[in-house]
Amino acid sequence: MLRTHTTGEINAELIGQTVTLTGWVARRRDHGGVAFLDLRDAAGVAQVVVRDEEDFDPLRNEFVLKVRGVVERRPEGNENPNLPSGEVEIIADEVEVLNTAAPLPFQIDDHVEVGEEARLKHRYLDMRRSAPQRALRLRSEANRVARELLHEQGFTEVETPTLTRSTPEGARDFLVPARLAPGSWYALPQSPQLFKQLLQVGGIEKYYQIARCYRDEDFRADRQPEFTQLDIEASFVEQDDVIALAEQIVARLWKLIDVEIDTPIPHITYREAMAKYGSDKPDLRFGLELTELTEYFQNTPFRVFKAPYVGAVVMPGGASQARRTLDAWQEWAKQRGAKGLAYVLVQEDGELGGPVAKNLSEEEKAGLAEKVGAQPGDCIFFAAGEPGPSRSLLGAARNEIAQRVGLIEPGSWSFVWVVDAPMFEPAADAQAAGDVAVGSGAWTAVHHAFTAPKPEFAETFDSDPGEALAYAYDLVCNGNEIGGGSIRIHRQDMQERVFKVMGISEEEAREKFGFLLDAFKFGAPPHGGIAFGWDRVVALLAGEDSIREVIAFPKSGGGFDPLTAAPAPITPQQRKEAGVDAQPSREENSN
Amino acid sequence: MLRTHTTGEINAELIGQTVTLTGWVARRRDHGGVAFLDLRDAAGVAQVVVRDEEDFDPLRNEFVLKVRGVVERRPEGNENPNLPSGEVEIIADEVEVLNTAAPLPFQIDDHVEVGEEARLKHRYLDMRRSAPQRALRLRSEANRVARELLHEQGFTEVETPTLTRSTPEGARDFLVPARLAPGSWYALPQSPQLFKQLLQVGGIEKYYQIARCYRDEDFRADRQPEFTQLDIEASFVEQDDVIALAEQIVARLWKLIDVEIDTPIPHITYREAMAKYGSDKPDLRFGLELTELTEYFQNTPFRVFKAPYVGAVVMPGGASQARRTLDAWQEWAKQRGAKGLAYVLVQEDGELGGPVAKNLSEEEKAGLAEKVGAQPGDCIFFAAGEPGPSRSLLGAARNEIAQRVGLIEPGSWSFVWVVDAPMFEPAADAQAAGDVAVGSGAWTAVHHAFTAPKPEFAETFDSDPGEALAYAYDLVCNGNEIGGGSIRIHRQDMQERVFKVMGISEEEAREKFGFLLDAFKFGAPPHGGIAFGWDRVVALLAGEDSIREVIAFPKSGGGFDPLTAAPAPITPQQRKEAGVDAQPSREENSN
Repeated sequence: MLRTHTTGEINAELIGQTVTLTGWVARRRDHGGVAFLDLRDAAGVAQVVVRDEEDFDPLRNEFVLKVRGVVERRPEGNENPNLPSGEVEIIADEVEVLNTAAPLPFQIDDHVEVGEEARLKHRYLDMRRSAPQRALRLRSEANRVARELLHEQGFTEVETPTLTRSTPEGARDFLVPARLAPGSWYALPQSPQLFKQLLQVGGIEKYYQIARCYRDEDFRADRQPEFTQLDIEASFVEQDDVIALAEQIVARLWKLIDVEIDTPIPHITYREAMAKYGSDKPDLRFGLELTELTEYFQNTPFRVFKAPYVGAVVMPGGASQARRTLDAWQEWAKQRGAKGLAYVLVQEDGELGGPVAKNLSEEEKAGLAEKVGAQPGDCIFFAAGEPGPSRSLLGAARNEIAQRVGLIEPGSWSFVWVVDAPMFEPAADAQAAGDVAVGSGAWTAVHHAFTAPKPEFAETFDSDPGEALAYAYDLVCNGNEIGGGSIRIHRQDMQERVFKVMGISEEEAREKFGFLLDAFKFGAPPHGGIAFGWDRVVALLAGEDSIREVIAFPKSGGGFDPLTAAPAPITPQQRKEAGVDAQPSREENSN
Repeated sequence: MLRTHTTGEINAELIGQTVTLTGWVARRRDHGGVAFLDLRDAAGVAQVVVRDEEDFDPLRNEFVLKVRGVVERRPEGNENPNLPSGEVEIIADEVEVLNTAAPLPFQIDDHVEVGEEARLKHRYLDMRRSAPQRALRLRSEANRVARELLHEQGFTEVETPTLTRSTPEGARDFLVPARLAPGSWYALPQSPQLFKQLLQVGGIEKYYQIARCYRDEDFRADRQPEFTQLDIEASFVEQDDVIALAEQIVARLWKLIDVEIDTPIPHITYREAMAKYGSDKPDLRFGLELTELTEYFQNTPFRVFKAPYVGAVVMPGGASQARRTLDAWQEWAKQRGAKGLAYVLVQEDGELGGPVAKNLSEEEKAGLAEKVGAQPGDCIFFAAGEPGPSRSLLGAARNEIAQRVGLIEPGSWSFVWVVDAPMFEPAADAQAAGDVAVGSGAWTAVHHAFTAPKPEFAETFDSDPGEALAYAYDLVCNGNEIGGGSIRIHRQDMQERVFKVMGISEEEAREKFGFLLDAFKFGAPPHGGIAFGWDRVVALLAGEDSIREVIAFPKSGGGFDPLTAAPAPITPQQRKEAGVDAQPSREENSN
């Protein structure tokens, strides 16, 4: 090693000893012929005193040094109690410049704001700052404690292939031309779903993997083309087993940031989550339940409220919002695809104000505040129309209100299992939400095509797809879905019936999933599992809003990597060699 | 859980208790109205006694069962001491068929030989056999103990991107069209090399990752298009530090199979390895050193031996080989690109036989056996020509001899570090060996372009590339290179000089590695690392010849996956969406 100690190991016990440190010049102060350097390494910072001008004169920020010197006690009053090395300083007798540094595009300083594009382009500099360092190290710890727990529970880590076949799971596949089978392509997996199921058929019984997954999506906020899952699957389990395991994992993860999670984590049904919170991932750090008013307004004179669904959410203190702010809410709603966001202001005297109020009957007005739980000074927001989009709008408003009014206690955590989700949704809804509906049927899977129905719908899910509930469970933390799983189908006949509901023809099923259907023929055990969205989990642990903060080298918008400038054009030779333009030979690929 | 116990938990302590097991019917024997089932789960096997014909009649091999019954002591004489459950059996009172199994393509039986293509096509069945189960579980354990050690040593696990930019490392890249930047492509990384170096520039200091890597090679024996590396990099280290860490890892891994490795592991220079063993990955489980005879034959009358290099290797007892066998050696040599394999047979009386002997002078004949260490009854094989290919031929012959003569003690292990490899080799040699020479120069890197010269060649490596030694080290186990690493270049000027030797123009370097060269400008620390070929390491631990045995879902020849039939043709719509045929827009991709 070029050093004898890290800065984290420098303390008063070493006084009088000669040590060698390596690191970066974080800061330099000159005091009449003496320079004080903050020397930074991964462990922290130590103060180095350089008395020889020839030594310190050439030094600039972020130079890499090897410094030999004697540890001495700092002069009284100069101690820094925030550093392990804060009582001492190193009096340099030899300073070697291991590398220089050109003027930086931005300072390595936690207090300097830098645009994200610049940060990502020079991520290797950004990473020297304490927040990214902490985030990456926390991620490593999260991996470790999760694996440790799974090992204790007898799970086997298995790597599954990433050059594989398309697995239609609701997004587009990234494709890879196969040079040795010109005209044929691999697909990068959207998840290890099929392989982890095959591992169960193979008798592995308890599998896990921290797996790289790929989805070629239109990059919505905070999506990455490659992302990471903690992927788990086990045989002979029931929903409660997977949930109990997941809760142990989550409890151990949050312990990393000194948070005790109360287990068991409460359950809420999908239906209740939608009705009360307008979301399948409700943030329960605050209340603000929606009130359904469909019946309340069943005889309303107000045309807008003559709708299949009317609901409301209350903004505490919202009656005092400026007209401009209330107008901005309309814009906010329109960006979400709604026509607007009707509102009623509850004045301090209990009278109702705002443009909607005058359209309501006296009776409706009289009971409204009490019905929705509004106090004088509050604002009541309404949505009316189809239940799905209306509830979603109110759910989004609920979150927005919580932010604006400050209903969320900093540092608070809320976990909830959302269970009993519908098995299928109309394909049109999935497409409207930006997903790729798998199959050509009127229905598509809410989770995915391999999710079993709850036992009570095993007979009827295909005759009445709209009613069937899935044997699925999603774990929601502070309004983020951090994990989702299900008990899977393990019988070929049931899997074929699900494909049929989704409009996947027998031929197509054969072509795409023939191997899975084959596997189910030969003694597939009952099995189920869960996958955690690992980037999101770590972002929550790190207290970061964006998953980019917990990814070493994230892509920015459109899947572009500002650091390497990938993706990039390829040469005609690469194109030719890769066989991109070859016609596949029929024989080669029939199976 | 559908069960109360695994078969591994069933033992005499449970006698009298009712248990529920789940698993597969491994074997069934009927004895007059009673069926004895071997029920198999991941933990092992337990014997189930089914007395009800209605229950057992429908059962076939590999049916999945849930069996409730009482644990009883087996009748005397029926115990199976090889099983934890061998003293007892379960008298079934309820047998539920969880799933059926169609007639199998092959039996799940460790003693049945099945062709590899069939095994891979039905890998989920193959995996139920004990050898693949053991191999996959051993792999999981190898991951665990390596990570545990690295954690103890303060290493941080970091995931690096896999949708990235081409990194020329001696093989072709797999390419991925970028739908959102039509005409541009990502590359799958051949290794995390550049990113792990950037992490060092970023101050991570100690990085590791069990990383998926991709090389689009012509599938030579036992290569996979995707493979796994244990990848390690650290700052402020010297060669000895990396070597010491690697030895700790290897020692802990081999402990998994109860093998104590003597450390420190001996070193051999590349030059010595080539001279003595004709290989840069010598198998030192046996001796059989090559003897150089160039000087010995300097005045030889035999034209073939008037060569820049003449060498020999002895085959103990080889003089008694049949003429046919000796002819087959010629074929063997020709398949390796040689003209043949000259030999001399040392007769029991000390006389030399074979066609070459009569071309030698009396003096040459007289001293030959002693010179090469041959005994009466041995065969001496020769190679003459350029030193490189001649030594390689003798090295291959040496391994072949060891196999044929049985020089390798079963269960023996030999580890050796090969150090001081040349920094560069003639580009023509690399191409001849099937590698893609990076750059257009006469020289290409033996390791890769980021390997530093040993300090004593720092000034001269570009003026005299043929002489420069690399600051590199390869770990060889039983003749397999299982790890390789180096101290890297960390200064921009040196990196540019290396590119220049390799004929990578400034413009090309800028385009391909601009981000690395930029990073080196801003205070890159000295750093180095190593990567273990994880598939090979686990194959060695598992006692398997092929890495396919330790990969859950390996590809067969040509990168084809017999299970999923990937790669496969894509639809015109997929092709269109992926932007395969778009022209890249210039602006979008300039950076």
